[in-house]
Amino acid sequence: MRKIVCIGGWGHFFEVFQTLEKYDGAQVCGAAPAYDGEDMSFLAGQPLTESFPMFGSIDEMLEAVQPDIAIVSTQPGYIAAGVVRAAEAGLDIIAEKPLGATLEENAAIAEAVAQNNVRLMAIFSMRAMAVFQTARRLVREGAVGRPVLMNARKSYKYGDEKARPEWFGKREVYSGTFPWIGIHALDMIQFTTGLLPVQVAALHRNQTHLSRPDCEDTCCGIFELEGGAQATVSVDYFRPMSATTHGDDWVRIVGTEGVVEARASENTVTLLKDSAAPQSVPLDDPESLFIPFIEGREGLTGTDDALALSRACLVARQAADENRILEI
Amino acid sequence: MRKIVCIGGWGHFFEVFQTLEKYDGAQVCGAAPAYDGEDMSFLAGQPLTESFPMFGSIDEMLEAVQPDIAIVSTQPGYIAAGVVRAAEAGLDIIAEKPLGATLEENAAIAEAVAQNNVRLMAIFSMRAMAVFQTARRLVREGAVGRPVLMNARKSYKYGDEKARPEWFGKREVYSGTFPWIGIHALDMIQFTTGLLPVQVAALHRNQTHLSRPDCEDTCCGIFELEGGAQATVSVDYFRPMSATTHGDDWVRIVGTEGVVEARASENTVTLLKDSAAPQSVPLDDPESLFIPFIEGREGLTGTDDALALSRACLVARQAADENRILEI
Repeated sequence: MRKIVCIGGWGHFFEVFQTLEKYDGAQVCGAAPAYDGEDMSFLAGQPLTESFPMFGSIDEMLEAVQPDIAIVSTQPGYIAAGVVRAAEAGLDIIAEKPLGATLEENAAIAEAVAQNNVRLMAIFSMRAMAVFQTARRLVREGAVGRPVLMNARKSYKYGDEKARPEWFGKREVYSGTFPWIGIHALDMIQFTTGLLPVQVAALHRNQTHLSRPDCEDTCCGIFELEGGAQATVSVDYFRPMSATTHGDDWVRIVGTEGVVEARASENTVTLLKDSAAPQSVPLDDPESLFIPFIEGREGLTGTDDALALSRACLVARQAADENRILEI
Repeated sequence: MRKIVCIGGWGHFFEVFQTLEKYDGAQVCGAAPAYDGEDMSFLAGQPLTESFPMFGSIDEMLEAVQPDIAIVSTQPGYIAAGVVRAAEAGLDIIAEKPLGATLEENAAIAEAVAQNNVRLMAIFSMRAMAVFQTARRLVREGAVGRPVLMNARKSYKYGDEKARPEWFGKREVYSGTFPWIGIHALDMIQFTTGLLPVQVAALHRNQTHLSRPDCEDTCCGIFELEGGAQATVSVDYFRPMSATTHGDDWVRIVGTEGVVEARASENTVTLLKDSAAPQSVPLDDPESLFIPFIEGREGLTGTDDALALSRACLVARQAADENRILEI
């Protein structure tokens, strides 16, 4: 039985909790704020939260619980400190993204993880979805030949002020829309094709949500990928509130021998190859994102991916800030 | 009855001919090569071609026919000379795109058209299609609010060597894939939203079609548009040969109040607004691209659009060549 603690009280920790509800190999043994004064009330009402104690500080929790794994899930500006602290305690880490809100934080995480020889995964939620796992399998099987041009889109509902609290307007806490959302688009590309970005040009802007000034509501970028492939990324916060799903997450992978598209909001994967129109592909049973990691096995995400994609989205943010083309 | 002549024997002149087959207000009265030695055999077998004489030179044809309008439709590297010659003769001009294969040629066209006070339209074929006219009407009616983020894609079959003859491999004749195909993606954005690009970063590369070195088979770009809106453009030559249509032409327009998508290969327009899922929109009866122009009325395309979009795609090509962000 592996002991897990939760550092922080905001973000996608609940996805790990949902997995653990149906899993006997680990349990959550405590939670503590990631930073002084963190509001931990978001934990209440989530799965598992009645079965473990709340601690006043990370140190107190680590001492009492002696955990194996930390979930670090908090506002982006506080993730890095929690990850570094967990690494120094020798824990394997499941972390909210982006791992660091600055390139310096990302580098500090890389160093802490390497020095303490711990494992780190990011909560790249798209990787848990059948559509992206199916697209990935198709690409790995060679269904589209060599991937040469990818397009990815994230489109989110903005919601009300509760959904985007005041700190979404502060770069140092929120990190920015490329790091917070755009990272998933980069991840959809890397997860399905295996290709990391090596260069970026980007735009971002707050078009209409001016009460949250640093929360860019449109972003776009072009990325050169390893081996000369190319990608476009598009992010927006303008998904209508009426839509069935919160997000419209979509990736298109153009290969030398076919085109595959995965669209999460419709739970569909289509393949265009040797057919007049795109053919629907039956979805794979999805593998768990978290269980292999908890069990110490190689899973769907690793330390290198997590750090590389966090770095890429931070460089994209910088490229947009400075209106420059940057190497990643 | 307006008299039309055809300068050049390659490209989309046949779309004008198809319109003229069912129209009594104009007739084609002759054709001549756009440049010495041009192969005019592509004209044979096209509509109308048995009803007019072939001339050996533009000057001979202009003298004999005294036309009102010239169609300039030839390989991209020869378009500008034909357009300038037609402008100097005082003709209104329907021209293949890009208008110029270089920025200098584009500027020369602008000057010739202005000095001779003639009208010029480009064969922006997408504008003739019901899906893009419908999307345009929706945007003009305010269905999506203010357009803030657009994505456009062109995906073409590469075909065999006949489809991409040897000159597709020569920049000075072919012009490049951004000018030849990407211009349609920019046009889908400008036509539907009215917004022109003001800045670009771009990538282009020949991934696998190495016998035609200057024919880039993947391109992508990000564009800042007038008023701060943003756009991504994606172009590829990897559409599978089995597909129903030659092209997969698609535009997505994200506005402050909704999202509209137009997909030509499926002849569909969808609107997501006040509904759980995108709703199919009945298509408008399309207006003719050419008849209003021939009749001297304001139509779906004008001189300014044609020159601005030709310039934008040439600057995108330069941005990709030089790996720089450029103002347009």
